[in-house]
Amino acid sequence: MTQGLLYVISAPSGAGKTSLVNALCAGAPDLAVSVSHTTRPRRPGEVPGQDYWFVEKTEFEQMIANKAFLEYARVFDNYYGTARATVEKMLAAGLDAVLEIDWQGARQVRQLMPACVSIFILPPSRETLEQRLRCRQQDSDAVIARRMEAAISEMAHYAEYDYLIVNDDFNLALNQLRAIVQTQRLTVQRQAPRLERLIASLLG
Amino acid sequence: MTQGLLYVISAPSGAGKTSLVNALCAGAPDLAVSVSHTTRPRRPGEVPGQDYWFVEKTEFEQMIANKAFLEYARVFDNYYGTARATVEKMLAAGLDAVLEIDWQGARQVRQLMPACVSIFILPPSRETLEQRLRCRQQDSDAVIARRMEAAISEMAHYAEYDYLIVNDDFNLALNQLRAIVQTQRLTVQRQAPRLERLIASLLG
Repeated sequence: MTQGLLYVISAPSGAGKTSLVNALCAGAPDLAVSVSHTTRPRRPGEVPGQDYWFVEKTEFEQMIANKAFLEYARVFDNYYGTARATVEKMLAAGLDAVLEIDWQGARQVRQLMPACVSIFILPPSRETLEQRLRCRQQDSDAVIARRMEAAISEMAHYAEYDYLIVNDDFNLALNQLRAIVQTQRLTVQRQAPRLERLIASLLG
Repeated sequence: MTQGLLYVISAPSGAGKTSLVNALCAGAPDLAVSVSHTTRPRRPGEVPGQDYWFVEKTEFEQMIANKAFLEYARVFDNYYGTARATVEKMLAAGLDAVLEIDWQGARQVRQLMPACVSIFILPPSRETLEQRLRCRQQDSDAVIARRMEAAISEMAHYAEYDYLIVNDDFNLALNQLRAIVQTQRLTVQRQAPRLERLIASLLG
């Protein structure tokens, strides 16, 4: 069984990352988003092991101490993180794992899993980004400005990624994501073990 | 203008490489097969600069002495080669260039143009390969055996390539080739210059 690959996908809010990743995974049985750990309270309807692994703060901090995370972050009073064991189990089963994380998480993952493939998604224009950040609710200009600042500081790190996609036309962007995933599976390193028998019979 | 990329595509005879490459280029205005130089006599209907650049043996040997070739080979009494100037002109114009060459040519090119992307195409089975080698004409078993030997010694070098494709279903193999080409265009190094204005306006 060929090991799966790890994909790290980042984008500013408003770039349409989650819709793209969901569509990517929906059409690919061998690709799935890795389920994160969090200390935030479970909301009605959320399923443990599907939405998140819900754990206590002390447990999360113990996992940090044990270096059990590929990446984690503290957002206000809650922790969010990707357990190394979650990802390694997927990869060992031949599944590709997708992490939807920010540039800081991506940096941590790249250090621990240098073979990961990282993709950054950009919105098609400043105007679209502002609109998408505004459309979420009826927010004050100050709130929008703060979100825009956060988006800009996320986008400032695009050059640290392997691939760059602009989400202008959703289907085009989705096809580009799919082409990237398909292409990683065609490398000699990934194909040779899978084609072992064919190659032996051709060269025999 | 972003520089084009150089693709090196190899396969044993009978793997269907030329049909795949032709179909790949037909759908892509920014991708073309590089026209080789040769000393073999021009055949009726062949167009210089389209089928080959036809040159005299002395001229070809002068070009070898001047290191004007990315790769060349002597086949019986004729020379065939890829002029560095031909490829560099294409790449500078933003075109991707495709070289259909054997593993020995591929090795020469990789040394001179390490940024090239190399792809090896395999036939789907030993039986199909034998059939395809036989179908060409009514050949003696000895001739077929010699072709099979040549095919095997070509295939023995598949592991030197970046990507490996099996040409079982033609359209599937073509889509895989297209995904590889599309993906190279999505790398940050290729996208960032093309998206310079968008990025400036997003970060500005």
